[in-house]
Amino acid sequence: ANLKDEARHGFPYFRENSNAVEYGLPFSTTSFAIALLLVFRTNESYRRWWDARRNLGRLCTAMRNIVRQGIAWFPPEQEALLQALQRWAIVLPHMMLFHVCEGHDMDSVLKSLLLPNELDWVKEQERPTFGVTACMTAIVQAACITNEQQQSMDLEIRGGLSEFGASDDILRQPLPVAYTRHTSRFLMIWLICLPVAIWQVYEWATPVISGAVAFFLLGIEHIGIMIEEPFSILPIDKIAGRLRADIEEMMENNQKCEGQISPP
Amino acid sequence: ANLKDEARHGFPYFRENSNAVEYGLPFSTTSFAIALLLVFRTNESYRRWWDARRNLGRLCTAMRNIVRQGIAWFPPEQEALLQALQRWAIVLPHMMLFHVCEGHDMDSVLKSLLLPNELDWVKEQERPTFGVTACMTAIVQAACITNEQQQSMDLEIRGGLSEFGASDDILRQPLPVAYTRHTSRFLMIWLICLPVAIWQVYEWATPVISGAVAFFLLGIEHIGIMIEEPFSILPIDKIAGRLRADIEEMMENNQKCEGQISPP
Amino acid sequence: ANLKDEARHGFPYFRENSNAVEYGLPFSTTSFAIALLLVFRTNESYRRWWDARRNLGRLCTAMRNIVRQGIAWFPPEQEALLQALQRWAIVLPHMMLFHVCEGHDMDSVLKSLLLPNELDWVKEQERPTFGVTACMTAIVQAACITNEQQQSMDLEIRGGLSEFGASDDILRQPLPVAYTRHTSRFLMIWLICLPVAIWQVYEWATPVISGAVAFFLLGIEHIGIMIEEPFSILPIDKIAGRLRADIEEMMENNQKCEGQISPP
Amino acid sequence: ANLKDEARHGFPYFRENSNAVEYGLPFSTTSFAIALLLVFRTNESYRRWWDARRNLGRLCTAMRNIVRQGIAWFPPEQEALLQALQRWAIVLPHMMLFHVCEGHDMDSVLKSLLLPNELDWVKEQERPTFGVTACMTAIVQAACITNEQQQSMDLEIRGGLSEFGASDDILRQPLPVAYTRHTSRFLMIWLICLPVAIWQVYEWATPVISGAVAFFLLGIEHIGIMIEEPFSILPIDKIAGRLRADIEEMMENNQKCEGQISPP
Amino acid sequence: ANLKDEARHGFPYFRENSNAVEYGLPFSTTSFAIALLLVFRTNESYRRWWDARRNLGRLCTAMRNIVRQGIAWFPPEQEALLQALQRWAIVLPHMMLFHVCEGHDMDSVLKSLLLPNELDWVKEQERPTFGVTACMTAIVQAACITNEQQQSMDLEIRGGLSEFGASDDILRQPLPVAYTRHTSRFLMIWLICLPVAIWQVYEWATPVISGAVAFFLLGIEHIGIMIEEPFSILPIDKIAGRLRADIEEMMENNQKCEGQISPP
Repeated sequence: ANLKDEARHGFPYFRENSNAVEYGLPFSTTSFAIALLLVFRTNESYRRWWDARRNLGRLCTAMRNIVRQGIAWFPPEQEALLQALQRWAIVLPHMMLFHVCEGHDMDSVLKSLLLPNELDWVKEQERPTFGVTACMTAIVQAACITNEQQQSMDLEIRGGLSEFGASDDILRQPLPVAYTRHTSRFLMIWLICLPVAIWQVYEWATPVISGAVAFFLLGIEHIGIMIEEPFSILPIDKIAGRLRADIEEMMENNQKCEGQISPP
Repeated sequence: ANLKDEARHGFPYFRENSNAVEYGLPFSTTSFAIALLLVFRTNESYRRWWDARRNLGRLCTAMRNIVRQGIAWFPPEQEALLQALQRWAIVLPHMMLFHVCEGHDMDSVLKSLLLPNELDWVKEQERPTFGVTACMTAIVQAACITNEQQQSMDLEIRGGLSEFGASDDILRQPLPVAYTRHTSRFLMIWLICLPVAIWQVYEWATPVISGAVAFFLLGIEHIGIMIEEPFSILPIDKIAGRLRADIEEMMENNQKCEGQISPP
Repeated sequence: ANLKDEARHGFPYFRENSNAVEYGLPFSTTSFAIALLLVFRTNESYRRWWDARRNLGRLCTAMRNIVRQGIAWFPPEQEALLQALQRWAIVLPHMMLFHVCEGHDMDSVLKSLLLPNELDWVKEQERPTFGVTACMTAIVQAACITNEQQQSMDLEIRGGLSEFGASDDILRQPLPVAYTRHTSRFLMIWLICLPVAIWQVYEWATPVISGAVAFFLLGIEHIGIMIEEPFSILPIDKIAGRLRADIEEMMENNQKCEGQISPP
Repeated sequence: ANLKDEARHGFPYFRENSNAVEYGLPFSTTSFAIALLLVFRTNESYRRWWDARRNLGRLCTAMRNIVRQGIAWFPPEQEALLQALQRWAIVLPHMMLFHVCEGHDMDSVLKSLLLPNELDWVKEQERPTFGVTACMTAIVQAACITNEQQQSMDLEIRGGLSEFGASDDILRQPLPVAYTRHTSRFLMIWLICLPVAIWQVYEWATPVISGAVAFFLLGIEHIGIMIEEPFSILPIDKIAGRLRADIEEMMENNQKCEGQISPP
Repeated sequence: ANLKDEARHGFPYFRENSNAVEYGLPFSTTSFAIALLLVFRTNESYRRWWDARRNLGRLCTAMRNIVRQGIAWFPPEQEALLQALQRWAIVLPHMMLFHVCEGHDMDSVLKSLLLPNELDWVKEQERPTFGVTACMTAIVQAACITNEQQQSMDLEIRGGLSEFGASDDILRQPLPVAYTRHTSRFLMIWLICLPVAIWQVYEWATPVISGAVAFFLLGIEHIGIMIEEPFSILPIDKIAGRLRADIEEMMENNQKCEGQISPP
């Protein structure tokens, strides 16, 4: 009977009267370690993703804000400076896009946003983000506004550079690779050994069940890996497009707002 | 006897001498993954909800503050400007309300808050939030206050725009959809398979117990989904209403406060 | 024998040869969900509690700071203004106390802190917090200090209002009620079903053990609920009292400090 | 046979054919609650500890910074003021030390840092922290620097007071005592009952194993309690000593730095 | 039969009819404590690592920003000051490198960055970070810029010192050593006892399985320890090199940017 049993179960080298729970012991005592590694990875990946999203959001807020200030503070005779400020404010989030997705076609996007000479100037730079912020700084410096207003607007440019730096940190510094590799390896070995433990109970259903468990656990790991590099999945172009629409409406409403204040 | 047992238990294809714990092995070894996904979702949904609430709270603080500053700093002859500032400060949180709940009737709410010409101007804008902040900036710019006071008040307007941007990020960027879908799918399959594992023990009580477990786990998932979009459940109108009452009392106490300082 | 066993165990409707572990399966597979809900609630309640505590602490820091600035910057001939500033700085945290604990007797506390006319003025306001900050703003506005000093002091008043707003958010916005209710319900049903699962093993010891488990789990839930409304358990009056002692000593040391600087 | 078994196992009142796993059921279903409470306590204690450490670090940064500013901005003829500023900047972190460890001997430490008249003045104060910051404020006020420089330096003094306030909050507000007590009680009862559950399996090895488990779990709790009051284990004196060395080197390099700028 | 069984299993002192699950009880009830300690350590180590990385990132942002401001604000005749500012801005992150990795060869790196007299001056200092920031402060002080611009640039220098201080805190303050030691000890004993529990089931496969579990758990602990001291694994030299390239391109684009503003 024992021999028949062994032949039937495929693992004749274990004690014949042990039951499935016994085989499962190393699984239940290591499952917490898998959980630990998957939780850790999932949480940190998500935090990176949301941090990157918030960086983009704060960059857009800084740009909306500098345009708001420019509209209110630049004197009417410096309309050209205001137009330039608005152009560069729209361009800055696109610079983030080109920075993080290297293959993007800069030309077609920027042609509709910048004057030809500005476009040429941007294109010949290796790190155009710094060129754009330098331009904005020079515009604010050239405008006839008070010292205090200048510093307030400079703070927004600083905000733009700072969010850009934070995004760059996320882009260039992956999670410690040891964690990523250890998690993958551990999960793989665990999943490969799983059928051994459940074979005695589920027999022909073993592949189905092992497959389902593997599908779900590997699914979690896969999402973690996908989300760890947030810039490849964030809709940066839509966010930049929305900012463009916002700023263009702000510029249009420019004169009308003045009318609201003076009469009453 | 074996045949009878198989017929009775409904799962005749499993080894007859295995017990319920054995069937439960894949359940207890995957329950941690369910826990992981539910915890992750619950925590992140709650964090979004509380972030959104705090954004609203900080927006109201910024508005209370700009009115406090206006009351103390605007010269008495610019009472009209102060009135306008107060009107727009009350309107800004309502703009958040209209922004996040598209179906809201803007007219009936704003009629009691704004002058007719202001209301017309707001209504013809696509993104009235920027119009409102532009108005506030123009008012602060028009007031006879020191440069430093102007920048302090501008900081509050900036705070308003910034909280608005943060809320907009939460509104437009859902949790990574892969997580949401993976959690739902996993939970569903897990709950469907549960009766198989407990059938041998609980027999006719199986549906009751499976139902209870499903009710509670799906309940947690449901709350997570509900709370993930915080603006649909936050009492934005009450918060905006409270801000209105606060600001109106601040305006009423205006003169009396002056009396407190001068005599002693 | 089977019949006798069934009669003895009180649950004759289950398969007679199943053991206690089998009955426990739904318990061990749902315990993670209970843990999830209790952890979630405990953590968020604690975070609310500590946030509220820190808000109070930061409010006190802002008040200590504005008094420090007033002492150093107000000219000697404006001693009366400094006295008023100090009075209001002591009163502001008490306003938080009256705001969160509605039943508190404002009169007896404020009588020793404010002048009679100030007390009358405060008492006739519905939201005295805004009155107090308006007074402080007016005092800073009336003092002969530089524009930059004025803005630094205004920042502290802003800090006071901002911490007040954050506390108000915690006070008025409970945890999503769905979570609270779901946790209580789930825990209750789980605890009621527990004796069924352990009856076969512990027999007469079942009530003792079930009671102990219930006592501890309900204890955790109770602490979570208690701490969720932090203002009812935080020693606001002691904190406000300590601030009063701090500020009064700062005022006393006023002249002596001047002596420290000039001679050497 | 049953009677013999009962006698041998020492717990004759349980059903004779139950096995050790059955006795373990209440243990495995409550272990998550223990984990929950220990995790909660450990995390919050650690967070308090690190917060306290960072407060100290930020206080030192503020002091280093105000000395850096004083060196660059104070005119050469106000060397005496700069010396006094440096003295007080070194003393402030020591004040934190005296505040949190009441038994410390203030005299011996401060004698080498302050002038005799300053030391006398500090010693007669009940809350010398406020005296020190008041002195620094008066020094900055007395120096011939621009208004903007004055505000920058005042911000550092404010930072000092603010970190002091945050540390005081940690010092005076323990974790909610209900949590601490509940965790201890629960853990104790759990550990006392553990031998009952494992007796049948390990027999004479039971005390050894129970002892090991108790040692480790109580060890975790003990570390949590130790770390909950961070100021008793943080090396405040070393941190203050390091700050002293830093500031003294900054003062020495004072003249040399000037030489670096002018020639090239 | 019993004797034979005992001889075969190697642990003849346990009850002969107990099964492997029973031996596993202390393991499954303490595995949560191991998980707790490993999770705690992993999370805190990672947080330290990411904090350190962000400190470096923010330091670079501050340096990029001060150079941007210098380029826009320093008058053309003070080109020499701007050059010096740029040199020191590039050097500051390298100072962090020398501070955290004591063995680094300062000479070879700094020779290409600084003038000979500057290099000599830096080398004779014990804490060159403070020397560098003092130099930058003196440069900003010497430049002909407005008071407000001076304070904006001073804020960036302050940012540099502050990030340096935060990194120093991480460098000098390890995780509470009690936690680290307790985790290692606990894990070791747990792993040594594991073979006892699984021997009966896996017989000759025991060493393989124990080894695999040990490899994975010790792997997690090892990564935690490695990452706890983030400065030994962060690519500080690459980050500093990138900053250098960024700043050098900003300086090159200097003149061209002016051309962008004036004509249109």
